[in-house]
Amino acid sequence: MSLRKLVILGTAAQVPTRDRNHSAYFLYWDHHGFLIDCGEGTQRQLTHFNVKASSITKIFITHFHGDHCLGLPGILQRIALDKVSHPVEVYFPASGQVFFERLRDASFFSNHLELVPRPVNTDGIVFEDQSVRVEAYRLDHPLDTFGYRIKEKDTVSLLPDKLALHGLEGEEIGRLKVNGSITKANRSITLSEVSVPKTGQCVAFIFDTRHCENVFRLALKADLLVCESTFSAEHHDLADAYGHLTSIEAANIAKESASEHLILTHFSQRYMSVEHLYQEAKAVHQHTSAARDGDVFVLPRRKKR
Amino acid sequence: MSLRKLVILGTAAQVPTRDRNHSAYFLYWDHHGFLIDCGEGTQRQLTHFNVKASSITKIFITHFHGDHCLGLPGILQRIALDKVSHPVEVYFPASGQVFFERLRDASFFSNHLELVPRPVNTDGIVFEDQSVRVEAYRLDHPLDTFGYRIKEKDTVSLLPDKLALHGLEGEEIGRLKVNGSITKANRSITLSEVSVPKTGQCVAFIFDTRHCENVFRLALKADLLVCESTFSAEHHDLADAYGHLTSIEAANIAKESASEHLILTHFSQRYMSVEHLYQEAKAVHQHTSAARDGDVFVLPRRKKR
Repeated sequence: MSLRKLVILGTAAQVPTRDRNHSAYFLYWDHHGFLIDCGEGTQRQLTHFNVKASSITKIFITHFHGDHCLGLPGILQRIALDKVSHPVEVYFPASGQVFFERLRDASFFSNHLELVPRPVNTDGIVFEDQSVRVEAYRLDHPLDTFGYRIKEKDTVSLLPDKLALHGLEGEEIGRLKVNGSITKANRSITLSEVSVPKTGQCVAFIFDTRHCENVFRLALKADLLVCESTFSAEHHDLADAYGHLTSIEAANIAKESASEHLILTHFSQRYMSVEHLYQEAKAVHQHTSAARDGDVFVLPRRKKR
Repeated sequence: MSLRKLVILGTAAQVPTRDRNHSAYFLYWDHHGFLIDCGEGTQRQLTHFNVKASSITKIFITHFHGDHCLGLPGILQRIALDKVSHPVEVYFPASGQVFFERLRDASFFSNHLELVPRPVNTDGIVFEDQSVRVEAYRLDHPLDTFGYRIKEKDTVSLLPDKLALHGLEGEEIGRLKVNGSITKANRSITLSEVSVPKTGQCVAFIFDTRHCENVFRLALKADLLVCESTFSAEHHDLADAYGHLTSIEAANIAKESASEHLILTHFSQRYMSVEHLYQEAKAVHQHTSAARDGDVFVLPRRKKR
């Protein structure tokens, strides 16, 4: 299995601080490189945290508030400058098409980039290949916003002892996997007889939003749930007023959606330290981290059900 | 005399490095706050180096290559967020009007900002008040580019002993300064009889350009000459090809224009250390510094001629 890991590029909400840059997250996923959000300064964060611009294959913008998208021109121009030969897709709320275009054409540059805009209109699958599916779900924020869920398709682990029992080997196994069954010695053997289900890995990104139904569609049984926690519990009035979550709301989402590891992020500049947000969330959902810029989270090995 | 000082916000060319952010310079000048260039990440550099967004009164963009302007949306939105009550003027090459507009409207925000666009078309004075004059001169770069020269108007230092000799005091001195002469005891006394000329301070910004005539109009007798030095002497072919200066060219400009203090900046990402660029320039012009992000240069006291 190839290494899948998440690099935290920026954990600030609204205003950057000395320690926190604006929103951006890079997910190494097999041959894909998913950049989720692209706040101002993301280009330099890549350098700080050793991510190559050429690793980026798809960019997912949650919404067009500046703290989530103003790094897009720099990233696109950097990809062009580095003469990256693969196309780069950009997913974004379709209602923000005009912002996407302004950011794409924000300043003069020689465009060597094969850029594929992918405006997102409705809830559901936005990208799919043989092994992974990316879904977008609309969130509840003053500006049109989508969260993203990246999910490896469920598959099976073959059981060598069961295969041997039926005398299955080589090319027969390939056919069994493709067709779901095979006939051998006049007996039909199904895939489920010689395998156990294996749940695909899942990483979900939720920012920015109030509590709403779609957070559960995004977060369901995620291995990593990267969730905004702009405010601490004591500032729940502000969270509600500005369309954000508190630490405890984020933790409740993780708990109720049976997510494994909650990663709090997108912290208000009012908190120098976010230790209290971390403690508040941890009391609700034990497996919680408070992200810092530069943190790396390696995805756990896929679970057999 | 109020403190005038230059804060170096970013010294990178083209691509930022771990140590160098994109182009931006802040000049405290009496009640003015001049931001020259605004590369990506300038908003956060302000925080790193303790400059308040509310201190900015005028922004001067040299040109619309990304490394000089992509921080503009973040800065304008930050000024708006901070509910700054004074207007902010933005000077930029008029040919880049479309880029200015895209940057201004790059993402959704509540615009509380009184923004005054000041497109620059031709060489000459772009701003003037009682005590300072800002001039712009077109440079020689593949994209339309202006350098900026900020010059305190020349004035005089009154000589107390000469004033006493003529029995001049109080309100009489005020009239003498305004009118250039005054009649006392049937004798006309001119300002030059009781004063010595005092040369105004000057800071010049030159990036990006090949060697050209206008660099001397910008740099003439500058106290601080902030000059691009993208390449070392050995890479003069690259400098010429891409429309940039070498360390030695920058130093020759300083020397020939009788500038006082040369501040090299805008370094190519190919140089981890710029010590050799500094040494090359220093051999030509003794009073040279190689800027680092966060450096502060206080303007020397005004000279009496």
